[in-house]
Amino acid sequence: MTPPTVPTKVKVKLGANNYGKADVRFFKVFRDAPRHEIKDVWVRVAMEGDFEAAHVSGDNTDLLATDTVRNTIYGLAVDGFTGSVEDYGKTLIRHFVSQGPKVARATAYFTEHQWQRLTVDGQEHDHSFVRQMPKHTAVVEGDGQTFTVTSGIDELYVLKTTQSGWEGYLMEQFTTLPETNDRILATVVTAKWEYAVPDCDYDAVWGRVYQTILDTFTDHYSPSVQNTLYRMGEAILTLCPEISRVHFSFPNRHHIRYNTERHGIENPNTVFHADAEPYGQIEGWVERA
Amino acid sequence: MTPPTVPTKVKVKLGANNYGKADVRFFKVFRDAPRHEIKDVWVRVAMEGDFEAAHVSGDNTDLLATDTVRNTIYGLAVDGFTGSVEDYGKTLIRHFVSQGPKVARATAYFTEHQWQRLTVDGQEHDHSFVRQMPKHTAVVEGDGQTFTVTSGIDELYVLKTTQSGWEGYLMEQFTTLPETNDRILATVVTAKWEYAVPDCDYDAVWGRVYQTILDTFTDHYSPSVQNTLYRMGEAILTLCPEISRVHFSFPNRHHIRYNTERHGIENPNTVFHADAEPYGQIEGWVERA
Amino acid sequence: MTPPTVPTKVKVKLGANNYGKADVRFFKVFRDAPRHEIKDVWVRVAMEGDFEAAHVSGDNTDLLATDTVRNTIYGLAVDGFTGSVEDYGKTLIRHFVSQGPKVARATAYFTEHQWQRLTVDGQEHDHSFVRQMPKHTAVVEGDGQTFTVTSGIDELYVLKTTQSGWEGYLMEQFTTLPETNDRILATVVTAKWEYAVPDCDYDAVWGRVYQTILDTFTDHYSPSVQNTLYRMGEAILTLCPEISRVHFSFPNRHHIRYNTERHGIENPNTVFHADAEPYGQIEGWVERA
Amino acid sequence: MTPPTVPTKVKVKLGANNYGKADVRFFKVFRDAPRHEIKDVWVRVAMEGDFEAAHVSGDNTDLLATDTVRNTIYGLAVDGFTGSVEDYGKTLIRHFVSQGPKVARATAYFTEHQWQRLTVDGQEHDHSFVRQMPKHTAVVEGDGQTFTVTSGIDELYVLKTTQSGWEGYLMEQFTTLPETNDRILATVVTAKWEYAVPDCDYDAVWGRVYQTILDTFTDHYSPSVQNTLYRMGEAILTLCPEISRVHFSFPNRHHIRYNTERHGIENPNTVFHADAEPYGQIEGWVERA
Repeated sequence: MTPPTVPTKVKVKLGANNYGKADVRFFKVFRDAPRHEIKDVWVRVAMEGDFEAAHVSGDNTDLLATDTVRNTIYGLAVDGFTGSVEDYGKTLIRHFVSQGPKVARATAYFTEHQWQRLTVDGQEHDHSFVRQMPKHTAVVEGDGQTFTVTSGIDELYVLKTTQSGWEGYLMEQFTTLPETNDRILATVVTAKWEYAVPDCDYDAVWGRVYQTILDTFTDHYSPSVQNTLYRMGEAILTLCPEISRVHFSFPNRHHIRYNTERHGIENPNTVFHADAEPYGQIEGWVERA
Repeated sequence: MTPPTVPTKVKVKLGANNYGKADVRFFKVFRDAPRHEIKDVWVRVAMEGDFEAAHVSGDNTDLLATDTVRNTIYGLAVDGFTGSVEDYGKTLIRHFVSQGPKVARATAYFTEHQWQRLTVDGQEHDHSFVRQMPKHTAVVEGDGQTFTVTSGIDELYVLKTTQSGWEGYLMEQFTTLPETNDRILATVVTAKWEYAVPDCDYDAVWGRVYQTILDTFTDHYSPSVQNTLYRMGEAILTLCPEISRVHFSFPNRHHIRYNTERHGIENPNTVFHADAEPYGQIEGWVERA
Repeated sequence: MTPPTVPTKVKVKLGANNYGKADVRFFKVFRDAPRHEIKDVWVRVAMEGDFEAAHVSGDNTDLLATDTVRNTIYGLAVDGFTGSVEDYGKTLIRHFVSQGPKVARATAYFTEHQWQRLTVDGQEHDHSFVRQMPKHTAVVEGDGQTFTVTSGIDELYVLKTTQSGWEGYLMEQFTTLPETNDRILATVVTAKWEYAVPDCDYDAVWGRVYQTILDTFTDHYSPSVQNTLYRMGEAILTLCPEISRVHFSFPNRHHIRYNTERHGIENPNTVFHADAEPYGQIEGWVERA
Repeated sequence: MTPPTVPTKVKVKLGANNYGKADVRFFKVFRDAPRHEIKDVWVRVAMEGDFEAAHVSGDNTDLLATDTVRNTIYGLAVDGFTGSVEDYGKTLIRHFVSQGPKVARATAYFTEHQWQRLTVDGQEHDHSFVRQMPKHTAVVEGDGQTFTVTSGIDELYVLKTTQSGWEGYLMEQFTTLPETNDRILATVVTAKWEYAVPDCDYDAVWGRVYQTILDTFTDHYSPSVQNTLYRMGEAILTLCPEISRVHFSFPNRHHIRYNTERHGIENPNTVFHADAEPYGQIEGWVERA
């Protein structure tokens, strides 16, 4: 496959680019009081700016080592990480834009694990925790002055055994699926939202969105994943004035009634194959009108 | 690497062997009452017996197709899966030993996802659930008459921010780790246990073990993962007379205080690197004396 | 966290949205001749259009079931999948835009596994294959008339033990990394490229890009991942006139010389810790000037 | 679930146990000559012995820190890791049994990535490599005097498009699978073998086993996975006198002909659904008679 002769190089230029450190796992304990608080975070920081010299001529003069980026993430956390990851993202970006001589913008991507305080004999324990499933994600982007914040929820598995159907859809050459007004609805919620305000109590909003998703999931007959998506968006925008719009990505984790009748056993809609793949994928934004 | 001439075949024989179906995901809804119950299960069934004809001469006469194994797992579940996965394992093994002409023994491996019923306005919802992190595992093995049951817990992440240390260990050429009497202790519990009784309420025992692990995790200063392991075993054997012995596998997920002092920032034991690997691994059985 | 009274719903609207089927694994054998050819593909199809009725009022009239999408992917493959996944993507999009009454645009995402024909006694085997590591990815998007094609390479692990360094970078408060002109360079190439032509032999171009990445990786002293990225882009644009621009995402998989001197053992730059995380992440486009 | 009163502790004892360090990734370059050689290894070391004091009374006096285990793995590699991982496993075990005051036995588990030297203009490159898919695994166990070595291959994907069938199996109540004498056979080989000799050129044997698996895969019509398993074992024992017995674990990755006839399209056995799960699982040892 190697060409026999080396052709003359064509003229090229550097396009959009960024660099930084990824998968930095840091953990902070707030231990001023006997009741400790914790934050368990993965972060990636990516910087954008005029890095042409490094790319084109191998001149690293104005580059921060990504190892330096790592040290900074830990170092600034000591005094600068006091609340939400969203707030810390702004702190990080302000630093990198001012510190890196050629850094014009930066983005911080966070995944925060959720830990629940353990309860012993009905009392919340001071310093022991058990991990919970959904994750708090966040992306903060900016030039050091203005920021765009997107927060999210990831890996929230919900399921209901009834009050969901799929009927009245288009029938054509490749359609074989039968209609139903009683199916299992199961999905893994990936949500993200943008803000109508420059700043707020991000952790409080996250908790409100989380609860609203669960509440909405239970409160209606779902004629489609699309309709449930829209209802969840409407409820969140109603209960969270801080949010301008919200996006959901819903895999439809199909539970297919198993045909045991061919073996002489009547399946009264109780035994299902939980199909891992393929799955329907439904995605969309719900926005303020 | 291919040898130039084909050597004469040596004499060989079939050793221990098994076959069956793996990663069968099945889901059962108990919907007799308005308040639905669910079971969400992965299972693998492996059969042992005299399968020499198939291996040696390609004679499949006495083999069940693994597709048949799958159909059976769903088919029998309709009437035969009414309680724990451990009980259903016995049902499956009885079937395969009697049904497969050459099947002498079988093993069923289960992974059961845990779902928590959703609470809406303080009321438990009838048919909506959110998934929890730890899993219920089980291995049931037997000849159709007698069974060995091993149950377990997987992916239970616990962490405490203090009341753990590591001191007084052996110092030698390759030792560089400093001693500490105040460190973060974090692990992912993988536990399994065997039974002193032929039968019991397996789900109730699972719940009791789960709670005992969490309670014990909080109730002492941990001088080592080994000592905490032993204490958990002791507590479980005390509270669960049904259990004969219990095994734990504990990765020690190190949280390493980050050296920010080299950057002129004092880290008052609050910012840590949550190291993913390598990790200490501590494993052991605790048994009745 | 549930608010005590239900607030009046705010006005909302549906934003950008799509739906379809994901993780459809299909496999095609070209068996007209004794020498079989194969294609091993994962695909996701996402459709965009006016799906407001389904979202807002639960009216599914104009929706294709995602199960229908699946059937279509297999059904059209019989006659319509004859060459590259990129070409089949166009076929699929044409179909869904014409078939779904409200479908305006569609996107097909492909991951194609690479299989190498086995060689037996120096002869290529007719129908036996062994899987290779890098994957061929592709995203085809369009309205049924015009298409945007992006092809890519994923999971290509390359490493060189010397002829790489990192020097002359910015030194500041958080910098502790020492400079080096002889380090191990290891990365996992994720590349993608766009086309300057509406159509071409996509598989041939993929092979040429693959070879050019490997060739460029070996042909220079690398002063930074950034510079190697730029050189690879330049070489690809030189050798592939079909390509308009190319993007790389390079994790810098650090290999850190282990300090065995503290144990009295001199490490002559031979033993390294292959650090899994964190890692530097360098990304950028190289474009025609 | 917490019991109201604390019961008297029962008598317990420590059973089988071990500890050590896992997921240690180390990398060695042999750079004496311009043509570098590399070894890319994950290792876990687990030690067994009398560790009762640590478990029962929290007395760590005779324990090595797992951090020390890590340092040792890197430190000894400088001079002690000169050939195969199997040989290095013996070196590590000898060290830990002699160094840990209470260590009676130890086990080293290895996963070694395979890297192929790059070829540039038909010449093998001195120091550039591309990673290959199958892995070399090894488990070495012993008391410092005698060792049990098990070597293996992992993640070797093979597939053939014909010359495989499944017929003549047992038909019963739950059987619905149709017979076929022309199916796709695809599996992911996991093999392991034990040795008839105390020592040998482990890397050379690995290469011979690898080649024999591929050769055998192509050289017969497969009436069942079981028969192919047996044939591979026979061929390996014939070509590798160093090996006493060999074990295979074969997932049967089903490729199911897609029924496109219900859409009016004839599928001439060319389009398949590559089903990810469930899968048949066939496992067995082949031994010298």
